[in-house]
Amino acid sequence: MSYKKESAGSADIMFLREAYQEALEGYQQGGVPVGAVMVRNGKVLARGRNKRVQEGDPVMHGETDCLRSAGILASYQDIDLYTTLSPCMMCTGAIIHFGVKRVVVGEDVNFPGNIQYLRDNDVDVVLVDDEECKKLMAQFIEERPDIWYEDIAGNEKV
Amino acid sequence: MSYKKESAGSADIMFLREAYQEALEGYQQGGVPVGAVMVRNGKVLARGRNKRVQEGDPVMHGETDCLRSAGILASYQDIDLYTTLSPCMMCTGAIIHFGVKRVVVGEDVNFPGNIQYLRDNDVDVVLVDDEECKKLMAQFIEERPDIWYEDIAGNEKV
Repeated sequence: MSYKKESAGSADIMFLREAYQEALEGYQQGGVPVGAVMVRNGKVLARGRNKRVQEGDPVMHGETDCLRSAGILASYQDIDLYTTLSPCMMCTGAIIHFGVKRVVVGEDVNFPGNIQYLRDNDVDVVLVDDEECKKLMAQFIEERPDIWYEDIAGNEKV
Repeated sequence: MSYKKESAGSADIMFLREAYQEALEGYQQGGVPVGAVMVRNGKVLARGRNKRVQEGDPVMHGETDCLRSAGILASYQDIDLYTTLSPCMMCTGAIIHFGVKRVVVGEDVNFPGNIQYLRDNDVDVVLVDDEECKKLMAQFIEERPDIWYEDIAGNEKV
C-alpha cells in the first residue's frame, strides 16, 4: 500500500516504543507480536498485546486488549492509540465505535489493515513505517505462519 | 432504517431466543441486555452477552464475548451468529475480520448498527424485527440511559 508517511513527533516515537515493548514481550511468550498503548495527557493510560496464544482468546488483539485494560471511560476523544501493526477490521471498528480520534501505527507492510477506512471515518492516522516493528512481525510470520494466518482468519487483506 | 425484512426460518427463531435468553440474564445482572449465540451444524457452539457492567469491560459486547467463548477456531465460514441487537462497528468489524458469513439480528430499532455495511462485505444478514428483543432493549435504555450511551460512546449512529 502507498499511504503517505506522515510526520510522527518525538513523543509519538517514544510511545510507539512502549507499544513495541508489549509486542516484544508477547513474542517472548510465544504470542502474536502486536502491542498497543493508549495515551492521555502525555501519559500511558493502558497497555495491551495480542493474547490469542497466551489466553486462547481470538478477540484480544493488541488494540482490544488495550481498550479492555483501560476499563470504562466516559470518552475516548482525548486519547491517542499506538499500535505496532495496522489495525484489522475488528480493531478498526473498535476505534471508530469508541471514538478514538488519533492512531499511530508502527507499520502496514506485514499486514495492510484498514488505514484508509479509519481516515474515511475521520480518524487521524500517523503511519511511522518503523523498522523494529516490521522486523519483529516478519520474523513471527516466518516462524509461525500457522498462528498468524489463523489470527487473521486466512484473510490477508483486512 | 428501512431494511427489508428477510425471512427467518423456525431454527433461526429458536436460536434467536437463545440469544435473547443471554440478553435477559444480562439484564437481570444489571448489564446491557445484548446477547449472542454462535451456531454450527444446528447446534449452539458458544454463547455471549454484553459484560460492560458485569466485568467493567468495554470490549465485551454480546458478539465479541461469544467469539471469545468459542475459543480458537480454524474457520468461521460455517458458523451462523445470532445477536439480539444490530451490531456496533466493533462487532461488525469482528464479524468481517473472522469471516462469519451469516448473521441473524433481533432488531435494529433501538440501535441501527451496521447491517448495510455487513451486507456490503458479503455477509448474509437476516433482520427478524423481534418484539421481545425490542422491548427489553427499550426498557433498559429508558432505565439506564447513562450506561447505554456510554456503551455506544455517545454515538447513536454506529
